[in-house]
Parts: sequence; structure tokens; C-alpha cells
Amino acid sequence: MIQRLGAGTLLFEHMPRVAGFASVAGKKEAEGPLGERFDKIIYDSHAGLDTYEAAESALQHTAAGLAMERAGVSAAEIGAVFAGDLLNQCVGSAFGLKEYHIPYLGQYGACATMAQTLLTGAVFTESGAADNVLCVTSSHFCAAERQYRFPLEYGAVRTPTAQWTVTAAGSCVLGHSGNIAVRAATAGKINDYAVTDANNMGAAMAPAAAETILRFLTDTHTAAAQYDAIFTGDLGAVGSALLVDLLEKEGVDIRARHNDCGLLIYDRDRQDVHAGGSGCGCSASVLCSVILPALQSGRLRNVLFIATGALLSATTVGQGKSIPSVAHLVQLARTET
Amino acid sequence: MIQRLGAGTLLFEHMPRVAGFASVAGKKEAEGPLGERFDKIIYDSHAGLDTYEAAESALQHTAAGLAMERAGVSAAEIGAVFAGDLLNQCVGSAFGLKEYHIPYLGQYGACATMAQTLLTGAVFTESGAADNVLCVTSSHFCAAERQYRFPLEYGAVRTPTAQWTVTAAGSCVLGHSGNIAVRAATAGKINDYAVTDANNMGAAMAPAAAETILRFLTDTHTAAAQYDAIFTGDLGAVGSALLVDLLEKEGVDIRARHNDCGLLIYDRDRQDVHAGGSGCGCSASVLCSVILPALQSGRLRNVLFIATGALLSATTVGQGKSIPSVAHLVQLARTET
Repeated sequence: MIQRLGAGTLLFEHMPRVAGFASVAGKKEAEGPLGERFDKIIYDSHAGLDTYEAAESALQHTAAGLAMERAGVSAAEIGAVFAGDLLNQCVGSAFGLKEYHIPYLGQYGACATMAQTLLTGAVFTESGAADNVLCVTSSHFCAAERQYRFPLEYGAVRTPTAQWTVTAAGSCVLGHSGNIAVRAATAGKINDYAVTDANNMGAAMAPAAAETILRFLTDTHTAAAQYDAIFTGDLGAVGSALLVDLLEKEGVDIRARHNDCGLLIYDRDRQDVHAGGSGCGCSASVLCSVILPALQSGRLRNVLFIATGALLSATTVGQGKSIPSVAHLVQLARTET
Repeated sequence: MIQRLGAGTLLFEHMPRVAGFASVAGKKEAEGPLGERFDKIIYDSHAGLDTYEAAESALQHTAAGLAMERAGVSAAEIGAVFAGDLLNQCVGSAFGLKEYHIPYLGQYGACATMAQTLLTGAVFTESGAADNVLCVTSSHFCAAERQYRFPLEYGAVRTPTAQWTVTAAGSCVLGHSGNIAVRAATAGKINDYAVTDANNMGAAMAPAAAETILRFLTDTHTAAAQYDAIFTGDLGAVGSALLVDLLEKEGVDIRARHNDCGLLIYDRDRQDVHAGGSGCGCSASVLCSVILPALQSGRLRNVLFIATGALLSATTVGQGKSIPSVAHLVQLARTET
């Protein structure tokens, strides 16, 4: 049973479980502070294949396969896969997942996609539309940079507010076993504060994150202090500071428990990533290498995961359009039963 | 309650209703055989705006607004919007819908997106995750042609198997009122038969449609003859002939009741569209101008709607990759209660 609270937060009564999860990352991510935590590292940016796009598909394929293995389910036992990525027409997902032959429902929420797949997957699992679902997203620095900005060979100088697209994928199987539950979720609305700088996506996305977090707290009648940790997807340094300020103005203090996946994945002093990491694979890989293991072990028991997405394309940026943003929230909780 | 049949077909016990629907189309579509049936025609390919992409957003915005008006619900009463389009990063949807401020779950299934939004929306409505949801997709010839093939000014010659991207949008509100029900749905799997010709997408998509239709008929223990009509999305002339053949080989004869939205929307003798129409807006606008009105009036009572999508990008085509395809099926039925 799904209960609707206030302005649209969904409460899952049976609480779909994260039955298995896995993360796969690239070389730069392996050299960062989470290097030891990823399940698999692919050091070659081509993953032994002929294109960066094929390499991104390999990240998804590997993460999805590992997650199913850990959940102890085969592809034939998965009712639907919810997947997405940043490549035009989400080809990272289509090519990465086609061999599994699972009913495929492609999702697009830019870098908010991982939370979107969990929210939608939880509705399918809780409602009985599927016994198990697979959630997976990815991003790849080389493929994204060429598509959104400049070919790497051009050697463009990056601005201080720019973020570094993470080369990684994360995948979860939602089902009925395991001690991590999806307890609640809030789907984000599109926010557009007329930011037009594609090199400052943190600023564009922070208001969307603030709006979704406030709506969730209001709907559930809870305070930020009741959660062990609040992880945003990839606001980076600029967006994170902005989010803390925006929420403070609304009387919500998240400072002591806020972390951003885009800040956790790299060592900004040592690695040349400017404002931090970004990309669908950023929040997905940090979720599956840091957040879910902490819930599994009991180190964290009640967590908010808010992935944030900038709904731009190179076309709209070139046309001088604004960057609408969205943020989806999922509450993850450790459960004994 | 959602019941799962056989290999994954979903049966909706309370049957979400199509509470309102609308179609908006462009000039060429207005000049075709369905011209009189569209709710609104936008004759200017720029829709009075500065870019084709903005014009596509205007199609979605208008169709969504009309559908809500007809359902008698405001944007604030919609629990979630499921939307998608063909533009890179689905910007047609993001920009078209942002002003409604509805929780936004972007979908990507290429030209299969309309059926995907109905399937997912039906799961949300049936499960209580939302009271009403909005489903909307669009495509725009000028925006798609430039993005996937050549700038229009180049005047490229089209091959006989090529299809013409429809300039249109269609939108449905799913809720609890009205006499058209979403009775069942089957999510498609990705099929890849190694077709690499981006000018022959009908051939790439036909096997996906055949696989989904066969799975639905097997799961529901029904025969094609039990349905008043079977509408595919945009297989066009080439793909439609192939689908009929593929199903015939499996002992399923759909010849007498099959129609393709890509063949219905244009007069191929009079309009220079080669193998027929395509694009997310093709099946969406034919659904909302032909199929749903026929169900509403009782002329049709039990219909299968199978939208088909080619999961390619200009990048993967340029890299010589195949065209994976997907087809999602929704069963729509007239109901007296």
C-alpha cells in the first residue's frame, strides 16, 4: 500500500528493500577518497571498446549484473528495469542493458535520475506491478564532455564553478529481501531560477533541492535533525553552500548532517575537479559505495538521498536558454525485519 | 490492485480512466486526413517563438493544458507528470511543462514514449501513488531533422524507407472518471536485430512490436480477433508489412484489425512523407484524435495501442552501431461504469 502525504510525498507501507547493489567506477574515481569502496574499477576510459559511449554502456552493464548477482536474482526474475543516463537519447542505458532482455522503462531526470529510478521502482515493487526491479544510471567524463562542452583534445580551460562529470555507474535491485528499505519518496517539481551558466549547474540545481527537501519535511512532519544524514546528488561546492543558505532562510538547518556526493567522490585539493563531481553516475556510485553500505552495517539508520538534475541540453544552452532543474528525494532506512 | 500475468503483463483491477485528452498538431498534419480531428493546430513551425525547440515545448504545454481542462483538474491536482520527447535531454518536455509545477518524472522510450507514460501512469494511479497523473509526449519535424539528420536548408534527399517526423503533441490525464479505461499493459524489452540504417526505422522496430504483442496475447490467453483494433505507433509502410509477416509466422493474424498511426496521420499519395509518419508526437496525437474519441463514442470498445521506439542517437548511428528498439503495449477499453 502506498500512502500519499501532504503535497505528494509517498509513504511505502511494506517498504521495498534494496536486495542488492553495486558500483563501478573509472580511474580518476579510483584515485579519489572512495577508491577502495567501489565494487569494480575500469581503468581504461574505453573499457577495451571502440567508443566512450560503448564504455559507458559497459559500466551500466557491469553494475547491473553485479547488483543482480548480489540480490541473488536472474534477469528473468526482474519485472522491469528503470534506467537512464546523460547521453543523447539515453543510449548508455539502451546499449548497456539490451542483453539482459528485461522490460525496459527508460528514465530521464538528468543527474537526478538515480533517485527517480528508486522512486518509480519502489512504486512498482510496493504495488505488486513487479516482484523485483532493477535501477541503474551512469555517466562518463569523456562522453559527456564531448557532448555538452568541447572535445577533450581542444583542452578548454574550465571555470572554478564547473564540475567534473563522474565516470561511474550504480545499480540497485529493489525487492523484498535485505535490511535497507525505501520508506518514502518525494518527486521533484521543475524549478527555473533563470540561471544560464552551464558551468555553474550547482547554482541552478540548489533551489530544486531546497524545494523538494522542504516539501518532504512538511509532508512528513519531521525535522532535518531526525535524519542521520542528508545526501544531495551533485551540487558540488557552490551548490551545496547555496542549498544550506536557502534552507536556513526557511528555518531548516542541515549543516551538521549534509553531505554532497559530488564533494565526497573526489579530493578537491588533490584532484583537479574544480567545484566537485557531477553526472548521473555520481550520486548513483556514491549511493552504492558509501550510503547503502553504511545503512547495511547499521552505521547509518535513517537517511535522505536527494539526487539533483539540470534539465539542459547543449542546444538550449547555445540558444541562451535557462537551466530548469529538478530534485527527487528518497528516504532510505535500516530495518530489522 | 495490480495483477501480474504470465511473462509480465499488468492487469489493472480498478482500471485507471482517461479523464481527459487533447492533441495539438502542425500545418502538414492539419493538411492530412486527420486535420479536422486535432484539437488545435499551430500553423507556424516556430509557434511564434524563437526556436523550433521552444515551438515543440509549446505543443506539449498546449496539449497538457487542454487535457487538464477537459479532465476538469488543475495542475495542482496532478500527482505526477510522465513526459518525454526526442530532443537531446528531453528538453521539449522540461521546458514545455516547467510552468505547471507538477512533480516531474521524465520518460525516455523514443517513439514508444506515449505508451510508456500511460503504462507507468496507470501503475501510479492504480496503486494510489497519485489520484491523477498527466501523460504527454511530442515531436517536431524541424527540431528532429536538424538533430538526427541534416539541417533543413541542406535539402537532403530522403530514401523511400525514411519516415517523416510528425509535428504534434498528445496528452492524457489518467484519473478515476470517464468511460475509457486502461485495462492492461505490457512493458517492452529491448530488441536488437542489428539493423543499422537510420532511414529504415520501421524495419528496426517491427520485431520489438511483434515480441510485445505476442507476449501480451500469451499472458492474457487472448487472440488478436478479440480486439476491435490494434494500433501500432509509427512503423510506417515498411515496418507495418514486416510486423504483419512476423506475427503471421507465429500464427497470429492481425491483418484485418491492424492500423499504424504513422500511416493514418498523412496521405502518402498526396503528402511527400515516404514510408509514413514517426516521432513521439505521432502515436500520441493519433491516440488523442482518433483512438480515444472512437472509444469514447463506443465505435471501438477494446483496443491495443502499441507505441514503438528506435533507441538510437545521431552519435551511435555515426559510429555505425545498430538500432535497438522497444515497444510498449497498453490495452484500452470502453467501460460503462
